[in-house]
Amino acid sequence: MTGQHRTPVTLVGLGSMGTALAGAFLDAGHPTTVWNRTAAKAAPLVSRGAVHARTAKEAVAASPLIVTCLTTYENTIEALEPAAAELRGRALVTLNSGSPAGARGMAAWADGHGARYLGGAVKNVPAAVGAEDTLLYYGGDGGVFEEFAPTLRVLGGDTVYLGADADLAALYEMAVGGTLLPALVGFFQGAAAMQARGLTADSMVRFTVKWFEMINSILPGLADEIDRGDYSKPASSVNLFLAGAGHDAELAREANLDMEWHKPFHDLLQRAADAGHGDHSISALTEVLKNRNRDRAA
Amino acid sequence: MTGQHRTPVTLVGLGSMGTALAGAFLDAGHPTTVWNRTAAKAAPLVSRGAVHARTAKEAVAASPLIVTCLTTYENTIEALEPAAAELRGRALVTLNSGSPAGARGMAAWADGHGARYLGGAVKNVPAAVGAEDTLLYYGGDGGVFEEFAPTLRVLGGDTVYLGADADLAALYEMAVGGTLLPALVGFFQGAAAMQARGLTADSMVRFTVKWFEMINSILPGLADEIDRGDYSKPASSVNLFLAGAGHDAELAREANLDMEWHKPFHDLLQRAADAGHGDHSISALTEVLKNRNRDRAA
Repeated sequence: MTGQHRTPVTLVGLGSMGTALAGAFLDAGHPTTVWNRTAAKAAPLVSRGAVHARTAKEAVAASPLIVTCLTTYENTIEALEPAAAELRGRALVTLNSGSPAGARGMAAWADGHGARYLGGAVKNVPAAVGAEDTLLYYGGDGGVFEEFAPTLRVLGGDTVYLGADADLAALYEMAVGGTLLPALVGFFQGAAAMQARGLTADSMVRFTVKWFEMINSILPGLADEIDRGDYSKPASSVNLFLAGAGHDAELAREANLDMEWHKPFHDLLQRAADAGHGDHSISALTEVLKNRNRDRAA
Repeated sequence: MTGQHRTPVTLVGLGSMGTALAGAFLDAGHPTTVWNRTAAKAAPLVSRGAVHARTAKEAVAASPLIVTCLTTYENTIEALEPAAAELRGRALVTLNSGSPAGARGMAAWADGHGARYLGGAVKNVPAAVGAEDTLLYYGGDGGVFEEFAPTLRVLGGDTVYLGADADLAALYEMAVGGTLLPALVGFFQGAAAMQARGLTADSMVRFTVKWFEMINSILPGLADEIDRGDYSKPASSVNLFLAGAGHDAELAREANLDMEWHKPFHDLLQRAADAGHGDHSISALTEVLKNRNRDRAA
């Protein structure tokens, strides 16, 4: 197929991720129109064959498929507002972070302007865009997904349709993405401990990679416990983690680290034990996390 | 090689991990002596060919290589105390969690009884013991590692000598292992959000696995920033994470979750921003974690 047979695509928002997305469309031979509030960001893409629209309205009018990659849903609506009249009948796909409520608001706005809407998320870094293994998922208009799946798959080979609710990608994005900051802070703490000993952070990378692979290997079992609500056959119990919590304080002393951020985790473990989950699987913490209102009422 | 040419090994402590370790030695044809305070735990191993020593002293006397797998260093010393006179000249390898200070105390105790000591850690679950890819690392007596590496490799193909300091495995264990609880709580929170929506925890496993693979892919770059102390070229900035922190509160509202444990992370981000790291890489949090004393003095 030559470029002229490929679906024309418009990309709105040229941060590092948006630029990577537009680049992937260009590489795959899609006629690509780009638009960004700061026009200079379009130049490298224009030199690779993209058309830089002068206005958002012109950008939207250029393609049947509009992909946005702005920071928030609010930014997205603000950027598209001047082009709203052009959206009718077109497919609008948003790729940004935000809450499920934000995604529902976005969907309502798109619906109000007659656009067919798909809310998506890129579950990887810009450098991974376009790779066979890169995951993107989408929720919303199933017809849009069916029609444009081959085009969207250009952004990552692992392209998934989650279902008809427009906020599903935002929900998964948040549920899955919630591990990032805690996992990274755990790593940074380890790095600080290494440096306190005159060792490098780099020296723990290979071990940490294997550690996350180990964590990955136990997730299916933990999810199964949570889905069955049966925590009675623990591979690792709440009490085992409680016993390990004391070591944290020792490392803090030894490496002179600030470990205040550990305290809520110890509290969670203690509350789980107090609720009778001491000998249950660590996955029983899920039940403690669910009970916001009960705790506040108590 | 037949079993009679393999190094005899003694395994002290038959919890789930100790039992897996002893089983791996048996499978590899090593004459294996086991000892546990609760004798009944030895029965399944005895039926597979292990010798159950009547006392710790008899257990230690049976082999040139003693591997312990008890909960703490304190438990280990307590269990070995009656056998201390037999330790002289033998290789003692501990595989348990604990602080670097605890490992140094263990090493001093072993040294005092003339044992040649190696402090180690198994970086995986009992079911993974014996696999080619399973990681164990050791610090301490290099002669012990050299002499017994082929035997220790029976426990996991990825067997690493960290260096001559007896507390190195404990240090890495703690630095690397510190990601486990935070990462799991992040996953449990996501699972609770799924269930609040009538979806399964299982439905997010495959996405979470990819997410941790993504995290693994960025660790070398983050470690490099930390080792160079140069946070000025961020892939993801502190401010970007700060902006995302607001979404957490929305998810908490939407799924009715207890997210108190997020607060210290937001505080860390804010302190990093206040210290001038807002536009720096998220890895700059390492510097904030280091400054326990400065913060207390302020």
